[in-house]
Amino acid sequence: MSPREPAPGHRPLDGVRVVDLSRVLAGPFCTLLLSQLGARVTKVESPRGGDDGRAIGPFKNGKSLYFSSVNWDKESIALDLKTDDGREVFLELLARADVLVENFRPGTMDRLGFPWESLHERFPQLVYGALSGFGRTGPLSRRPAYDMVVQGMGGVMSVTGHPGGPPTRVGVSIGDLAAGLYLSTGVVAALLERERTGVGSMVDVAMLDCQVAILEGAITVYGATGEIAGPLGDRHPRIAPFGVFDAADGPIVIAAGNDRLFARLCAAIGREELVADPRFDAPERRRAAAAELRRDLETTLRRRSASDWLVLFEEAGIPCSPVNDVAQVASHPQVAARSMILDVADPVLGTLRVAGSPIKIVGREEPASHRPPPELDADREAILAELRRRR
Amino acid sequence: MSPREPAPGHRPLDGVRVVDLSRVLAGPFCTLLLSQLGARVTKVESPRGGDDGRAIGPFKNGKSLYFSSVNWDKESIALDLKTDDGREVFLELLARADVLVENFRPGTMDRLGFPWESLHERFPQLVYGALSGFGRTGPLSRRPAYDMVVQGMGGVMSVTGHPGGPPTRVGVSIGDLAAGLYLSTGVVAALLERERTGVGSMVDVAMLDCQVAILEGAITVYGATGEIAGPLGDRHPRIAPFGVFDAADGPIVIAAGNDRLFARLCAAIGREELVADPRFDAPERRRAAAAELRRDLETTLRRRSASDWLVLFEEAGIPCSPVNDVAQVASHPQVAARSMILDVADPVLGTLRVAGSPIKIVGREEPASHRPPPELDADREAILAELRRRR
Repeated sequence: MSPREPAPGHRPLDGVRVVDLSRVLAGPFCTLLLSQLGARVTKVESPRGGDDGRAIGPFKNGKSLYFSSVNWDKESIALDLKTDDGREVFLELLARADVLVENFRPGTMDRLGFPWESLHERFPQLVYGALSGFGRTGPLSRRPAYDMVVQGMGGVMSVTGHPGGPPTRVGVSIGDLAAGLYLSTGVVAALLERERTGVGSMVDVAMLDCQVAILEGAITVYGATGEIAGPLGDRHPRIAPFGVFDAADGPIVIAAGNDRLFARLCAAIGREELVADPRFDAPERRRAAAAELRRDLETTLRRRSASDWLVLFEEAGIPCSPVNDVAQVASHPQVAARSMILDVADPVLGTLRVAGSPIKIVGREEPASHRPPPELDADREAILAELRRRR
Repeated sequence: MSPREPAPGHRPLDGVRVVDLSRVLAGPFCTLLLSQLGARVTKVESPRGGDDGRAIGPFKNGKSLYFSSVNWDKESIALDLKTDDGREVFLELLARADVLVENFRPGTMDRLGFPWESLHERFPQLVYGALSGFGRTGPLSRRPAYDMVVQGMGGVMSVTGHPGGPPTRVGVSIGDLAAGLYLSTGVVAALLERERTGVGSMVDVAMLDCQVAILEGAITVYGATGEIAGPLGDRHPRIAPFGVFDAADGPIVIAAGNDRLFARLCAAIGREELVADPRFDAPERRRAAAAELRRDLETTLRRRSASDWLVLFEEAGIPCSPVNDVAQVASHPQVAARSMILDVADPVLGTLRVAGSPIKIVGREEPASHRPPPELDADREAILAELRRRR
């Protein structure tokens, strides 16, 4: 094949077809990303209410905003996989598909009569992405799980929150989202492998495993030293000053972890003497004395407003930020410049506002418009007509 | 090509070569995942101390555990990219590579004389994965950022922690880790595209963008209703009961979001009357009265120990968990059964304990052994000899 530059509108998964049995968040978050990369995603939903996410609020004009935020640019067909008709259409979809994604509990697809082994035999091209709480193997495999369960079981909750304070959940469903992201990588890697071998494979991602994988060194430190990481509130376990600090009127984030940035910070707040202070004159000493360093810095930081300090720190090249709320994020000029907030025209909701894709390909255009989140079974006729044409 | 089942030891990125200029966490976390998928990752480090992560503690026998946790199964060569010799070897590596990954601030590679445009012209096969705080475009593009900065700027911090309490960081570096995961998907997608077009592309991932992408519906809800999400402590914003609850001797996680699970929970604790209670008899009502529901459930839950309740709830099929610390995670039977804790023999550390890959491919074997995290420049002679052989 002779190399050719893709057209500006080309996306890496253009031409890839995904049949999506997944529900609620983790699976749909994965297939949303696949869709943003160019794949055509067909949701296959239960005729009895469809994706459970459709029932999760808040609602506007009767349509779930929770569901809508992760299911735009997808189509929907309702199929009862326990009936012959439903099964037949499902298998015809799989015959034309590159990827099947589901997030049932392990065993459900077997009971429905679609075990991996027979799907693989019948559709050797098919990549099968399965996401579950605990995966296909191990003693807890068949147990139910939700985000909160794996945040608690997998250790992330034990390192989040303030020392001595109540348990604290990561404010977004990191149990679901991390698993959706790992499954995205796994499915695309299996598609790449298929280009070379001609056969698809089954990718088995467990939410619990993903929580362990994002513990960021805590397993390693525990294994080597016996130290059990605990919650540290607003600061980093290994780097200081690196946290949220009180200015006169509110918090600011300062991340000045190395000697160079620490010196700049001390200069910017007129506390040059701290640089050579024997308590703070090396990264490890600053970390060991992080609480003391914070108190010392805050005696100065509290004298001026957060916005004053941010202007000064930005000029000095010190990594810093306000603590933005969602409204501030939604109107942030950098976020806008990166097309990270998209408006999707929706017949029920009017304008649906969603987060864009963070995978930007240099020189490519982002799509000019998007499909609204489908009503249940909205694309039945078009999908069936297409299957008839290609039969 | 006639389809053939890959061998049990085959991995999807076998044969893929990654040249890795990345440092500290976000980039190395991405290339660790690529390595776990089978890619050969060559760290190209500065001769002046190498990857900055090597200087971040804690240390054991002088070797950074922080660095070690994300750099096993990689090789290292030290190259000064400002010298002719260093540049020449770097370009020879790129000529044989499939992927280049870096997480410098935008502009750094241009100043070093390696802008994307000229790399693309010279090495059309190369996929270039760039990860930075704010991306290659937009008003903040050249600003420095670290995990803490994007957790604050991107809104995740504003929804984490307890209402009215101090700002709370997600206890793991989700700003770095989410960006590393998105870059992994982007790089593999670009490799897949390359199979079809013959040319590589540049994937531009910003840590801030990734924080916006994981806000889980908060942008959508704000856009539709003006409601600004705030921190909710230990509970889910949309589902109840779904949080951490007090048993007699400590916390337990319960996730009983739908009518069926709520009824099971009420039965399991002998509070069947709650199912028909008009305050709690539908998901939206339970959510609206989440605090009241918690108090009511806890009057019963406080009468028995967490471990008693967990046994009962597991039997009843109610999603639940203890709040495990890192030691409990490291010895968890499900985590062990999934090969999520690996021991890597390291000449300095003895046994290095690390988290495994959560991308499991059904029917494939996990590698039996792993390379220890390399000392700076450890693989220079082998790499140079290989370049000479293939010249």
